[in-house]
Amino acid sequence: MALRVQKYGGTSVADIKRINNVADRVRKAYDQGDEVVVVLSAMSGVTDSLIALAEQATKTPDKRELDVLLATGEQTTAALLAMILKSRGYKAKSFLGFQAGIHTDKTSGKARIMNIDCQNIQQALEDGHIAVVAGFQGTDKDGAITTLGRGGSDTSAVAIASSLKADVCEIFTDVDGVYTTDPRICNSAKKINRISYEEMLEMAILGARVLQTRSVEFAKKYNVPVHVRSSFSEEEGTMVVNESSDMESVIVSGITCDMNEARITLKRVPDQPGVSAKIFTPLAEAEISVDMIIQNTRSGGETDLTFTVTKDDFERAKEISYKVAKELGAGEVLTAKEIAKVSVIGLGMKSHSGVASTMFQALASENINIRLISTSEIRISCVILAKYAELAVRTLHTAFGLDQEK
Amino acid sequence: MALRVQKYGGTSVADIKRINNVADRVRKAYDQGDEVVVVLSAMSGVTDSLIALAEQATKTPDKRELDVLLATGEQTTAALLAMILKSRGYKAKSFLGFQAGIHTDKTSGKARIMNIDCQNIQQALEDGHIAVVAGFQGTDKDGAITTLGRGGSDTSAVAIASSLKADVCEIFTDVDGVYTTDPRICNSAKKINRISYEEMLEMAILGARVLQTRSVEFAKKYNVPVHVRSSFSEEEGTMVVNESSDMESVIVSGITCDMNEARITLKRVPDQPGVSAKIFTPLAEAEISVDMIIQNTRSGGETDLTFTVTKDDFERAKEISYKVAKELGAGEVLTAKEIAKVSVIGLGMKSHSGVASTMFQALASENINIRLISTSEIRISCVILAKYAELAVRTLHTAFGLDQEK
Repeated sequence: MALRVQKYGGTSVADIKRINNVADRVRKAYDQGDEVVVVLSAMSGVTDSLIALAEQATKTPDKRELDVLLATGEQTTAALLAMILKSRGYKAKSFLGFQAGIHTDKTSGKARIMNIDCQNIQQALEDGHIAVVAGFQGTDKDGAITTLGRGGSDTSAVAIASSLKADVCEIFTDVDGVYTTDPRICNSAKKINRISYEEMLEMAILGARVLQTRSVEFAKKYNVPVHVRSSFSEEEGTMVVNESSDMESVIVSGITCDMNEARITLKRVPDQPGVSAKIFTPLAEAEISVDMIIQNTRSGGETDLTFTVTKDDFERAKEISYKVAKELGAGEVLTAKEIAKVSVIGLGMKSHSGVASTMFQALASENINIRLISTSEIRISCVILAKYAELAVRTLHTAFGLDQEK
Repeated sequence: MALRVQKYGGTSVADIKRINNVADRVRKAYDQGDEVVVVLSAMSGVTDSLIALAEQATKTPDKRELDVLLATGEQTTAALLAMILKSRGYKAKSFLGFQAGIHTDKTSGKARIMNIDCQNIQQALEDGHIAVVAGFQGTDKDGAITTLGRGGSDTSAVAIASSLKADVCEIFTDVDGVYTTDPRICNSAKKINRISYEEMLEMAILGARVLQTRSVEFAKKYNVPVHVRSSFSEEEGTMVVNESSDMESVIVSGITCDMNEARITLKRVPDQPGVSAKIFTPLAEAEISVDMIIQNTRSGGETDLTFTVTKDDFERAKEISYKVAKELGAGEVLTAKEIAKVSVIGLGMKSHSGVASTMFQALASENINIRLISTSEIRISCVILAKYAELAVRTLHTAFGLDQEK
């Protein structure tokens, strides 16, 4: 007997028929003697419709109240699954954030889970119930409803799995696992059977979109075994687990491509202490998060400063940059929206040199010019023109030997 | 400065435009220095759509989970109104049932409010907020979400008004008050300016549908002044208040007509002790509530027994009646669905005789045959064939002098 937390995403609960399919799967685990906690997202499209409704009400919906509105999406699917399970003769019970004891901080719209008091769920399991939890939501210390941001149900599931010391946290989604790269771009992309938390973290951040970043951080921190798999098949998916020694033999595990960034360059910025702060403080105050930052030295006490932001924040970031450039007496501000960030990721990089040069050579062989470079311990990212994105991904996939069956 | 609880029904919050109108009204009260608690229903039609969704999931939705689903309707409107008020620069805060401290019993689908802990709302008012409460919902002692039944938001509003000792509980609806009878049937129907709780209770029970019955019971019990008025005009509506001596000068305040009942007669039931219990116990066990019960004596130790149930329960009640009749060795079972119950209601009846005879004569003058009669201290009801319903209402309206302007 195992304790399984199963999370089903929006496409898996998109309509009553699919929720019935979820019930089948849940039932199967329960029937074989497992304890099951189900965590659900809203039906696909519902969260977006609710946001549209809020924006119809007011252009700048209050974040606290938006969370109250959005939380109805998961409340709906949780109630529906619980009633379907009950109508089939199973003991089942829905739990909203406040009932599941999911306590968060007060950051409406992207709250962080502070702790989970799983007592109610624990009790329900002991009584033989299937616990059906509305994902994505919690309450802050004043009892206000909060939501955890896009993909937050992943984090709900991992956090509950951690708190219950579950044997596995299964993330059911519309793909059958984590791939070496996006199969829509590269048809030789392969499913990865096992991946480390660290690699998954880089993959998630860089746009693989299979798991919410914070859910992976959480899984890593509390050592929760996560199984990413398809809700439409019985196939094994990808296990996200602790780094093991054999993993390092694979130099590069995956290639990601993020089309959602834009670049801003401030030319001829005075090369003095405190200048960076003058640029990035107003961005931070506007809640714009900056991804890459690159500074090139120039002669004459001046420097060029380039950074990237998400396309959503681009217009606001541009405005602030013009203002700051003027104040600093800097030169012109250059911007580019049609860029892509391609990255190679792998634990093995730590112990192998030459990954960067392989990457640069591969891109050069296709005459793809690299505009920006940034690196972490297990990742190298290059910004290139967007039009080369797909070509770059396929080229790198081949260059790092990912096309071959393992 | 007054403390006002304002309740807006489904048609008053049917879309964003109307919720904006609600915000206008709320703002007006707040701007003139009043403290305002707003209680909202779901957008009109939403509760029905949610029920349809549940029935699509399973033919017999579990009641606990149905409540979880239905509660999303009021959650949505409360969030929307709060964000609209905030976007206009007002301090506002939404409260769901569990946040508003509305504690109910465990009867899913038609829970009763046990007590209200208004501390959070009180605090919000003290901090200068407009409190926006999701009506219709509460939580039971185990923290499960419950709903209060059709029209339950009225009861939420009255209960909160009582708990906060509000100066008035305003029920905003799509009609401009309580009428002497249904204006759609009788175009000389008049708005009633003041009505006693007792009369309103009879009017509500008998199908006036302006206020949930339990909200009137609550108002009566705790002496909450209720003002039923239109959300689309500034006109004064109907004040529902304690009985006062001048009210008795009006003999009949209103005429109601309930088309929603059906009649069942068991012929030749043995006239012995315990027989009634044998008939009504299985009905009660099937949660069928019986309205009128009439028993006529017959010769030879047998009696005819007639009762009425709502049309919704008719088929099930009929089935049970056939079974019981057989067990008791009773005669045939007669049923009639096309019936109407017309009633005259008035505090003045208590001190005036002759109301019944006026009623019977008026109906007789139009050749309307009376099938059943029942009475309370301030009401006389007659069951007639449904096809005479409108004629009966108009005839009684004239007979009791309600056509004249007061």
